[in-house]
Amino acid sequence: MLYLVGLGLGDAKDITLKGLEAVKTSKLVYLEAYTSILTVGKEALEKYYGREIILADRDMVETDSDRILEEALAEDVCFLVVGDPFGATTHTDLVLRAREKGIQYRVIHNASIMNAVGCCGLQLYNFGETVSIVFWTDSWRPDSFYDKIAANRERGMHTLCLLDIKVKEQSIENLMRGKKIYEPPRYMTVNQAAEQLLEIIQNKAATESDLAYTEKTLLVGMARIGAEDQNIITAPLNQMISVDLGGPLHSLVIPGNDLHPIEKDMLRQFSLNKDVEALLQT
Amino acid sequence: MLYLVGLGLGDAKDITLKGLEAVKTSKLVYLEAYTSILTVGKEALEKYYGREIILADRDMVETDSDRILEEALAEDVCFLVVGDPFGATTHTDLVLRAREKGIQYRVIHNASIMNAVGCCGLQLYNFGETVSIVFWTDSWRPDSFYDKIAANRERGMHTLCLLDIKVKEQSIENLMRGKKIYEPPRYMTVNQAAEQLLEIIQNKAATESDLAYTEKTLLVGMARIGAEDQNIITAPLNQMISVDLGGPLHSLVIPGNDLHPIEKDMLRQFSLNKDVEALLQT
Repeated sequence: MLYLVGLGLGDAKDITLKGLEAVKTSKLVYLEAYTSILTVGKEALEKYYGREIILADRDMVETDSDRILEEALAEDVCFLVVGDPFGATTHTDLVLRAREKGIQYRVIHNASIMNAVGCCGLQLYNFGETVSIVFWTDSWRPDSFYDKIAANRERGMHTLCLLDIKVKEQSIENLMRGKKIYEPPRYMTVNQAAEQLLEIIQNKAATESDLAYTEKTLLVGMARIGAEDQNIITAPLNQMISVDLGGPLHSLVIPGNDLHPIEKDMLRQFSLNKDVEALLQT
Repeated sequence: MLYLVGLGLGDAKDITLKGLEAVKTSKLVYLEAYTSILTVGKEALEKYYGREIILADRDMVETDSDRILEEALAEDVCFLVVGDPFGATTHTDLVLRAREKGIQYRVIHNASIMNAVGCCGLQLYNFGETVSIVFWTDSWRPDSFYDKIAANRERGMHTLCLLDIKVKEQSIENLMRGKKIYEPPRYMTVNQAAEQLLEIIQNKAATESDLAYTEKTLLVGMARIGAEDQNIITAPLNQMISVDLGGPLHSLVIPGNDLHPIEKDMLRQFSLNKDVEALLQT
C-alpha cells in the first residue's frame, strides 16, 4: 500500500492522527522536499514521529520513483507531502504509476495553502484561478499570470499567488560543466513578488490604459500560514515591496475590488498602516 | 483563548495532533454541526477524544455565540468545525466578534473539500469560482450558479459545486404555527444536483443555442471524500442522475473542456462505463 500523507502547513504536529498511524506502521517513510516546506526540518519530524525519514528530492521522485513503487508493492510505504498530497502534479503522476503497477494507494488529506488562505478573511468561494509567480532572470521574465489576475479581477474574484521555490537548483555554469553542485534554496518573498507585479504594470502603462491593478491596489501578504508565528499583512502594492514578513514560505493574495463588509473587517486586522483603511473605505 | 479547530473530512482520526491537543486542554468543546458533517457523529468524537462535546447548531452559533465568547475570555474554548474553520462565513463572523471582545483566537487548519477535491485528479489551480447548488422548491428555483459555471467553462476552468445541506429546518407549516419541530436532515445527492443542472439547460435550450454544458458533459460525482469508503464516479450528466454514490456528503465537479492528459488519466480511474472513455477522447 502506498500512503500519500499530507503534513499540513506548520510543523510536526500538523499531521493528522490517521496520517501518523500510517507513518508509524509503514516500512519506509519518504518526505517530498521540493514543492513546499514546513517551518521545521526532517530531523524534527523524525524525532516527533519516531521514524527514520528518507528525503525525496525532485530528481528522486521524477526519475527514481520506480523504486519507491516497487517497495510499495511488497510493503506499506508512506510518501509525506507538505500541505495536501494533491497540491502538485508530480504526486498525481506517482498515483497514476502506482495504479499501473497494481499498487493500492490511499490519500490522507490535510490543509494546504489552497484552503488555509481563507484565514486572511477573504471567502474561499470568491477566489478565481490560482497563479504561480516565478523568479525572473535577466533573460526570462514570464508574466502570463498577469492575464489570469486580470480575468479574476474582471469578475470580482480574489487571486492566490503561489510564490516560486528553488530547491537543489544548479547554476547554469555548474549545469554546463556537469558539476552536481547545488545553489542554496531560495523562496520568493512577497516583496519580490510585489516588485515583479509592479514592474509588469509599469511596462504595460506605456501602451495600455485599463490595467488589472495599480500600485495602490490592496494586497495581502502571508507568511508561514498554520505555524505559531504566521504573519499576515495587508498593504498597497507599492508598500508591499518593503514589508518584512520574516522567513518562508510566503504567499500573496490580490483581493477582488468588490469586497464583502465581513471580508473588509477581517482584512483590517492585518493593516500595515492607515493607508489601508482609506483603501478599504473606497 | 478561542481555538477554531478543523476536523478534516472523514472521521475522528482526521483531526491533527495540534487540534487534538487543543481539544484535550480546553475547558469547553463545541462542535459546529450544520454546515458539514463527518461520517461519524458526536458520540464517536467524544469517545475518541475523551471529552464531552457540546453540539452547536445554527441558532446557537448565530444568536447565542456571545456566551461561547464570554467563556473564551476566561478559559480555553474549542470550536470544532468539519473541514477547515474558514469554510463558512459564520466562523469568520465568530472570529471578528472574538477580536472585538479582545479574545485571542487561534486557527488549527485541516483539509476541506475546497482542497481535497484534488483527489479526483483535476488540478486545483485549474478550478474557477466555487458554486453552491441549493435544494429547489416548487416556488423557488434559483439558478444563478449557471452563469458562474458558464464563466468558468469559458475560461477552461473546472467548477466545484457544493451541494445543499438542510439541518434543523422547520417546515413552513410548523414555522408559521411557531412549532419548534424540525424536519429530518437532508443532504443533496449528486443525482439531485445533476437533475437540476439538466433542467436548467432544458429550459434554456428553447431560447439559447450556446449552452455552458450539455447532457453529455462529463461530471465527477464525489461522496464522503477523506473517509475509508469514499466514492468517486465520472459519468456524463444524463447518467449522473442515476448513479449510486451512497450516503452523504456529496459534491459535484464540472470539469473544464480542456483537460490535461494527466487529468484525463486520473478521471479514467473513476469511469462509470465506456461512455466516459469516448468523452475523454474528444
